[in-house]
Amino acid sequence: MKRRDFIKTSGMGVAAITGTAGSLLSAPAIASNKKIKWKMVTTWPKNFPGLGTGANNLAKLITEMSGGRLTVKVYGAKELVPAFEVFDAVSGGAAEMGHGAAYYWKGKSEAFQFFTAVPFGLTAQEMNGWLFYGGGMQLWEKAYRDFNLVPLACGNTGVQMGGWFNKQINSIKDLKGLKMRIPGLGGEVLKRAGGTPVNLPGGELFTALKSGNIDATEWVGPYNDLAFGLYKAAKYYYYPGWHEPGPTLEALVNKKAFDQLPKDLQSIVRNAALVVNNDMLAEYTARNNAALKDLVNKYKVDVRKYPDDVLKKLSGLSDSVVAEIANKDKMSKQIYQSYKKFRDNVVAYHKISEQAYLKARSL
Amino acid sequence: MKRRDFIKTSGMGVAAITGTAGSLLSAPAIASNKKIKWKMVTTWPKNFPGLGTGANNLAKLITEMSGGRLTVKVYGAKELVPAFEVFDAVSGGAAEMGHGAAYYWKGKSEAFQFFTAVPFGLTAQEMNGWLFYGGGMQLWEKAYRDFNLVPLACGNTGVQMGGWFNKQINSIKDLKGLKMRIPGLGGEVLKRAGGTPVNLPGGELFTALKSGNIDATEWVGPYNDLAFGLYKAAKYYYYPGWHEPGPTLEALVNKKAFDQLPKDLQSIVRNAALVVNNDMLAEYTARNNAALKDLVNKYKVDVRKYPDDVLKKLSGLSDSVVAEIANKDKMSKQIYQSYKKFRDNVVAYHKISEQAYLKARSL
Repeated sequence: MKRRDFIKTSGMGVAAITGTAGSLLSAPAIASNKKIKWKMVTTWPKNFPGLGTGANNLAKLITEMSGGRLTVKVYGAKELVPAFEVFDAVSGGAAEMGHGAAYYWKGKSEAFQFFTAVPFGLTAQEMNGWLFYGGGMQLWEKAYRDFNLVPLACGNTGVQMGGWFNKQINSIKDLKGLKMRIPGLGGEVLKRAGGTPVNLPGGELFTALKSGNIDATEWVGPYNDLAFGLYKAAKYYYYPGWHEPGPTLEALVNKKAFDQLPKDLQSIVRNAALVVNNDMLAEYTARNNAALKDLVNKYKVDVRKYPDDVLKKLSGLSDSVVAEIANKDKMSKQIYQSYKKFRDNVVAYHKISEQAYLKARSL
Repeated sequence: MKRRDFIKTSGMGVAAITGTAGSLLSAPAIASNKKIKWKMVTTWPKNFPGLGTGANNLAKLITEMSGGRLTVKVYGAKELVPAFEVFDAVSGGAAEMGHGAAYYWKGKSEAFQFFTAVPFGLTAQEMNGWLFYGGGMQLWEKAYRDFNLVPLACGNTGVQMGGWFNKQINSIKDLKGLKMRIPGLGGEVLKRAGGTPVNLPGGELFTALKSGNIDATEWVGPYNDLAFGLYKAAKYYYYPGWHEPGPTLEALVNKKAFDQLPKDLQSIVRNAALVVNNDMLAEYTARNNAALKDLVNKYKVDVRKYPDDVLKKLSGLSDSVVAEIANKDKMSKQIYQSYKKFRDNVVAYHKISEQAYLKARSL
C-alpha cells in the first residue's frame, strides 16, 4: 500500500476491533508499525553453502510470504551464541528461532538422533515419509515440548559420502586403529569395529588430515568437500555414506513465541520450513553431481567403494548401536519402534522401486 | 500486536479501500471485504487419493497462509471442464488455477513431457534438482509463457510400478503383440518393442484387464493400485516402473491473474505448490510401502522383476524415442539438452550415493 492510499482511507476504521487476540494479530503490519522481528541462531558458519544459506532462505521466505509482517534476522554460529548452545538459546527465549540438527542435542536425549539420521537408516525421501506420514513428526513434537520448542524439518543433504582416507579399506581389519573424524552414532560404530572416532569442527579437518593427526574424515558430500579442498589432503574418497544416509536438518521455534503468532503466520513459518526442507536437497542433488565431476576429472580423485564385506559388518554393528538407544527411556523406545517399523517396510518397498529403478537405469 | 494496542490505534483506520488493484489486494481481507476467490480445475476425479487430495492440500495451504485473503475452490475432472481441457481453461482464464501433469499437454509440445517424466529419466529427487538448480524451471516457465500460464511443480508419486500383467515377461519377445494400457512415451517405447499400447482412463482399467480386452496395464503404485483392486484382475505385478521414474505433477496459474496478486500472495501461491510437491511424495512413500505389504501378505500378489535383458532393450529404445523430441523445434531441443546434461551428471553421482547406499543397506 502506498502512504497516500493509507491517508485517504484512514477514516474508514477496521472491522476486527472486537475480534479475538488471534484475529487482531492477523491485522496487517503494513497498516500499523507493529512488525514482528525475530532472531534466528544457527549452528553453521554465517552463509555456509547449503546449510547456512538454507537458514537464510528460511528467513527470506518468511519475510516474503508475510509481506514483511514477520522478519527474521539470521546469526551464524558464535555471532550470538556458540553452535552447540542454539537449542538452549531458543528453548530459553534468547532467540525465537534456531537452525541446526537434532543429533547435536543427543546430550538431552540419545533418541533425538532419529530425527536427523542413523547409520543404515532412512534416506531423505524416506525420512519425509516417516516424519509426515509415519508418525515421526508427532513424536518429534512430543519430545521437544518439554523444552518449550516446536521442531520443524528444515533441510537435507541427501546420502553423504563415506569420507576421505589416507589408508585403503580392504577389510574390516583396516578399520582397527583408524583415527577418523566421525561424530555421533557413526563414530560409535567405528569404535566397535576397533577404530578411534574423533570429533573436530569442519574448519579443522583439512589441517588435521594433512598433518596426519587423523587418518580419515567424513564431512558432507562433493559440493561441501570440494570447497574445503579435502582432496588435497587425502588419497581416497570412499562411498557410500552409510553413517548419514539423508540427514534431516531442523528449524527450532520457541513454543511460546510460536503460540503467540496469528494462525496465518504460524502456517507461513511451518510451510517456509517445509520448502527449505526440500529445496536444500534439490540444491545438494544438483551441486553434488557437478562437484563430483570436477573432483574426478579435474582433480583426479581416487573414488572407491567400501567393500561389501566391510559394509555388511558395519551394518550389523549399527543395528546394535541403534537398538541400544531404545533402552534409555520410555520415549526413546517409542521413537525407536516407530522408526524401526517404518524402516523395515520402506526398505522392502524401495527394493522394488527406487533401488530396482536406479539399477535398471545403469544396466 | 496486542488487542490493547490495536484499539488505541484504530482511529488510524486501515488501508487501501481506494487504492490501486495491486495495493487493494495487499490489504488484509480481514479489514475489508475484498477477498480474492479463485477456481482450480483439475485432471483428477474429485478427492482422488494422493493426486486429487494433493490439489485439495494446495488450496488449503493458500487459504491458511493468506489468512483467508485468497481462497481457492477445487473442481474435479468434468465438474467444470473435462480433464484434458484443464490447460486451455486456465490459459484462457475460465479458471485461475489448474492441477494436472505437463505430459497431458504433449499435443501443444512434445517437449512438455520432460517436465513430468520420461522413460529411464530422472527420479523425484533428481527432477527437483534439475527444475530448481539445473535450469529446468526457467525453461518450463519460458515454454508456458506463450500460453499465458505460470507452471509450478506440485506433486510427485515417486518411482511407479511396472504394471499388472496376465502374461509373463521373460524376454523382449514377450512384449510382441502385448496389448497394454500405457500412455505417452512409455507407450511409444512399447510400440517399438512390438507391443500395442492403448490409452484408457483409470476407471476403466479393472474391467478391461479382467475381460481380457487388454493383457496388461500400468497405473501408479501399490497405494493407488490396491484401491483399484487390480490384483483381482491380473496374475503378475512387475517392477520397476521404467516408464515413469518420478513424475512431477503441476499446478498451473493464469499468468494475468498471478501478475495481479500482491507480492506476498504470489510468494504464498508459489511456496504452497512447493510444499505440496514434496508432501505428496512423502505420502506415496509411506502409503506405497504399507500397501505393498498388504498386496504381498494379504492378497498373495506375485511380484516380479522385469528381466535385466528386457530392461536393457527398453532403455535403448527409450533413448531414441526421447532424443527424437529434440528435433521437433528449437525450444524442444533446448529442453532436451538441458535435461540430458543434468541426467548424465546425476546418474554418475547417484551411482555412488543413492544407488550405492540402497544396495549397501540390503546386502
